[in-house]
Amino acid sequence: MEKVKIAILGFGNIGTGVWKILQENKKEIMKRSNYDIEVAKILVKDISKKRDIELAKGILTDNIDDIINDDSIKIVVELVGGRDQAKEYMIRAMKAKKHIVTANKLVIANWSEELFKIAEEENVLFYYEASVAGGIPIIREITESLTANRIEQIIGIINGTTNYILSKMTIDGISFEQALKEAQEKGYAEADPTSDVDAYDAVYKLAIMASLSFGTKVNHDNIYREGIRNISAVDIEYAKKFGYTIKLLAIAKEESNKLELRVHPTLIPSSHPMANVNDAFNAILIKGNAVGELMLYGQGAGDMPTGSAVVGDIISILRNNVKPSDLLDINDVADFKEIKKSEDNESEFYIRLNVKDKAGVLGDTAAIFGNNNVSITSLTQDVVHKEHVLLAFITHKSAEKNVNNSLKKIKELENVNEIESIIRIESFN
Amino acid sequence: MEKVKIAILGFGNIGTGVWKILQENKKEIMKRSNYDIEVAKILVKDISKKRDIELAKGILTDNIDDIINDDSIKIVVELVGGRDQAKEYMIRAMKAKKHIVTANKLVIANWSEELFKIAEEENVLFYYEASVAGGIPIIREITESLTANRIEQIIGIINGTTNYILSKMTIDGISFEQALKEAQEKGYAEADPTSDVDAYDAVYKLAIMASLSFGTKVNHDNIYREGIRNISAVDIEYAKKFGYTIKLLAIAKEESNKLELRVHPTLIPSSHPMANVNDAFNAILIKGNAVGELMLYGQGAGDMPTGSAVVGDIISILRNNVKPSDLLDINDVADFKEIKKSEDNESEFYIRLNVKDKAGVLGDTAAIFGNNNVSITSLTQDVVHKEHVLLAFITHKSAEKNVNNSLKKIKELENVNEIESIIRIESFN
Repeated sequence: MEKVKIAILGFGNIGTGVWKILQENKKEIMKRSNYDIEVAKILVKDISKKRDIELAKGILTDNIDDIINDDSIKIVVELVGGRDQAKEYMIRAMKAKKHIVTANKLVIANWSEELFKIAEEENVLFYYEASVAGGIPIIREITESLTANRIEQIIGIINGTTNYILSKMTIDGISFEQALKEAQEKGYAEADPTSDVDAYDAVYKLAIMASLSFGTKVNHDNIYREGIRNISAVDIEYAKKFGYTIKLLAIAKEESNKLELRVHPTLIPSSHPMANVNDAFNAILIKGNAVGELMLYGQGAGDMPTGSAVVGDIISILRNNVKPSDLLDINDVADFKEIKKSEDNESEFYIRLNVKDKAGVLGDTAAIFGNNNVSITSLTQDVVHKEHVLLAFITHKSAEKNVNNSLKKIKELENVNEIESIIRIESFN
Repeated sequence: MEKVKIAILGFGNIGTGVWKILQENKKEIMKRSNYDIEVAKILVKDISKKRDIELAKGILTDNIDDIINDDSIKIVVELVGGRDQAKEYMIRAMKAKKHIVTANKLVIANWSEELFKIAEEENVLFYYEASVAGGIPIIREITESLTANRIEQIIGIINGTTNYILSKMTIDGISFEQALKEAQEKGYAEADPTSDVDAYDAVYKLAIMASLSFGTKVNHDNIYREGIRNISAVDIEYAKKFGYTIKLLAIAKEESNKLELRVHPTLIPSSHPMANVNDAFNAILIKGNAVGELMLYGQGAGDMPTGSAVVGDIISILRNNVKPSDLLDINDVADFKEIKKSEDNESEFYIRLNVKDKAGVLGDTAAIFGNNNVSITSLTQDVVHKEHVLLAFITHKSAEKNVNNSLKKIKELENVNEIESIIRIESFN
């Protein structure tokens, strides 16, 4: 069987997973790719660092040139992460006629067009299945399996860290701070959790999925973003009362060439399959105009699941069965699609107020909602202290603009202490 | 843009769906396939039959030769169903150098090897995504997305009719007969429901998935098969008490080159995402040694979802991105894998007995289970009539052989009227 040499850039969590899979499943991979894959070089920062895995002498290098200049290396697997350096390595590798596999969502979300142009010019393949949702093959799903569809919606739980935190808060009734601490202890959250908790990670992933699904380049800066820091145990409790579960959803919808793009904490019906996606699991629901609803559920992170996507891409390159131009539809499609302003989006809302325990406050509030075309489906109220009442509403579908206008006026009411929560609802209709 | 002519054999439900998708999503399909697809011929039994869809003159034909002998037709979409004739049409089309797309599980489950050999000889492509689970892209999942994995398990709800019936029985508390009648009225079940209700349909689909996943030809005759006719409202009720939901599962597991293959009603934990797969929806859980658990959920039948899979295959052929030999791993892999005898399989069991209300019957029964190495996790009993008690057990994981031996002895007990139910449990471990 013919040998093929590959190089791995970065030997952290995912890199180690890729190495393990290539060893453990060697027999299957040989059969399926028709090649005997040899990891010829691994780029690391510190060659002398002690590692769990035993490697043949000469495999580790701290010099990228050892890989770029080695013509016998045909595929470069970029797992260094980060931005500029990773991008530079990939460009240099392509110019040296090497195919690319990457798990780097940051680089794909920012420079997919530039990178794909180079791939086409150099006639190399560029695969990035692992950049979104780890082991879930969502990129292939969109670009290969659902090609017969006009995709109308993508709704996903695509950040494992925040899903772990929200699941813990929901199931164990603990606070955000406690759940975050647990997530950090278990290695699900980083010391600085900003990227996950403030939803930057989910925004990058949504930008990639939306670009592919709607055939237009979606800039991640245009996606409405709201993290989970302000979700309180009280809101989770109230949501439960109303029959909902709180999840961080990434939502992309197209209607008459207008795109709705947003990532935020969301109430979803507790009876929906997505409500039972717990811990670090991910799930992505796609609505296509032919296939209807299709949901994928699996592990969105971790060395082996993400490694599964990376090695799957390596095998696809060896089978050589996709032309570069197939990989990112956005190169072919120049459709302009308008991204709606957040205030023009419509949804149901969960709104919780802290008010004084005075007669008339409910009437005043309801009147303001009514005057602004926001109608209320249900409400609940609890006296917490003597003069301090929590008042929670579920609205019918309303324009965000109308909800915001209402709340501006409600805030000015003498008997309203504070607007404590505004969380959107997704009913999957 | 270059035109390409295709022919559709059969213009029933799915054929109509394919036609609709090709019209409605024409723009997207042109972009993604780089071709302008023209349906040049449609094979029907009766040309003069009144149809909802208006077709240009000359498209309908009742003569297969009009298609086989037309060299301008490049792709034949086989949707006539059935066995021998469909197979013959596909072979003739391939020998006339036409690519094939089919939704025919019966033909694939029986003659995949023969058909694929011909496809390779004739150098044509052969796609069959729609043959299993309608709109869910499970074939691509196994053959392209999860190539890095050794697949250890496939567990699926892959028959919409029986899932509709069991969902109705569970949610509305009605009998099998009532639920079947409803399913027939809604068009989910055929007048003769044997193929669905007695699980033949699921067995064919499992044979296809298992062949692809385990790299060995699985003969559907070797799959243990048990339908849902004997599931009673009482068992659904008792299962609920124990925390389980009853589903018809198709199960394939590999362990040290031994395959376990079975389709039967199964108790699954009500907290598992699969327990909430209701109505005619399908779901397939794959366990890979790298990716972990991956679940796909969607519509397993219907004109548009199945059409989505068929048209996706047509586009794949036009992109020409898969070599014939990639399509069915079993051509490359000659591994012999032993299929375990049903009695050697192990699982937990739900067993329900009808016994006389006499002291000692529980003790006698428990002693027999114990003597045969079957240990009991929990039990419940209800007095139904004066002298008539229903006694239901959940066992620990036990060999079927041991359970059968126990039951043989229990049946002989004077105070046991009948063994009314034996249903396996799947705990997804």
